[in-house]
Amino acid sequence: MNTIWKNNDLYIDVHESAIPWLKIFTKYPYKEMSEVPKEIRDEIYMILEIIEKLMIEYYSPTKINIASFGNYLPHVHWHIMARFEKDSHFPEPMWGEKQREGKLNLPDFEKFCYRLLQELA
Amino acid sequence: MNTIWKNNDLYIDVHESAIPWLKIFTKYPYKEMSEVPKEIRDEIYMILEIIEKLMIEYYSPTKINIASFGNYLPHVHWHIMARFEKDSHFPEPMWGEKQREGKLNLPDFEKFCYRLLQELA
Repeated sequence: MNTIWKNNDLYIDVHESAIPWLKIFTKYPYKEMSEVPKEIRDEIYMILEIIEKLMIEYYSPTKINIASFGNYLPHVHWHIMARFEKDSHFPEPMWGEKQREGKLNLPDFEKFCYRLLQELA
Repeated sequence: MNTIWKNNDLYIDVHESAIPWLKIFTKYPYKEMSEVPKEIRDEIYMILEIIEKLMIEYYSPTKINIASFGNYLPHVHWHIMARFEKDSHFPEPMWGEKQREGKLNLPDFEKFCYRLLQELA
């Protein structure tokens, strides 16, 4: 686990991957999104939007992917990923069948995270 | 395509599956969620919440899954699914590896859709 940001309600973890992939967790382990208080849900949606916009600006990805499953870990968390035509799974979701060895030459991820922290500050 | 509901901004399609699975599309083909006007984004989140709550009440699922990919079809749409321990893919996402022949004995889906339309009216 690699937490890059937190506040009283949420924290953001890096998901180790060849693509830019972050996860937003609720601090309290709500099982389903509809159990999360409205102000925290709104915060999640706002942070998803901030991350999406910055991923688009910084990486010019082919597509942004967002998902909330929690089947293995029934604790609300949202995945947000920048996807690229030449990544390992495109156009399948990252949970789908691998399509190829990914060939990516992406801008620095730590710099992206640093910019994100500035946006969230 | 099986559209069960629409308004000026959005429509809801049924995704053919052994599990309860709906898709919320924006009427205008925005590519990414951050391009969608805030009032329509809020509408999507509100409808996701209504569907999730009704799925939980009606089906008592093991978990709700939500996702927005659009890699094949770059037009904003959200998947929302009720997942069950004995469904074909659990605990993998429905895009992951099939785990078994699903064994489900679920309440009537048309009746669920009818209740949903009442909630959305």
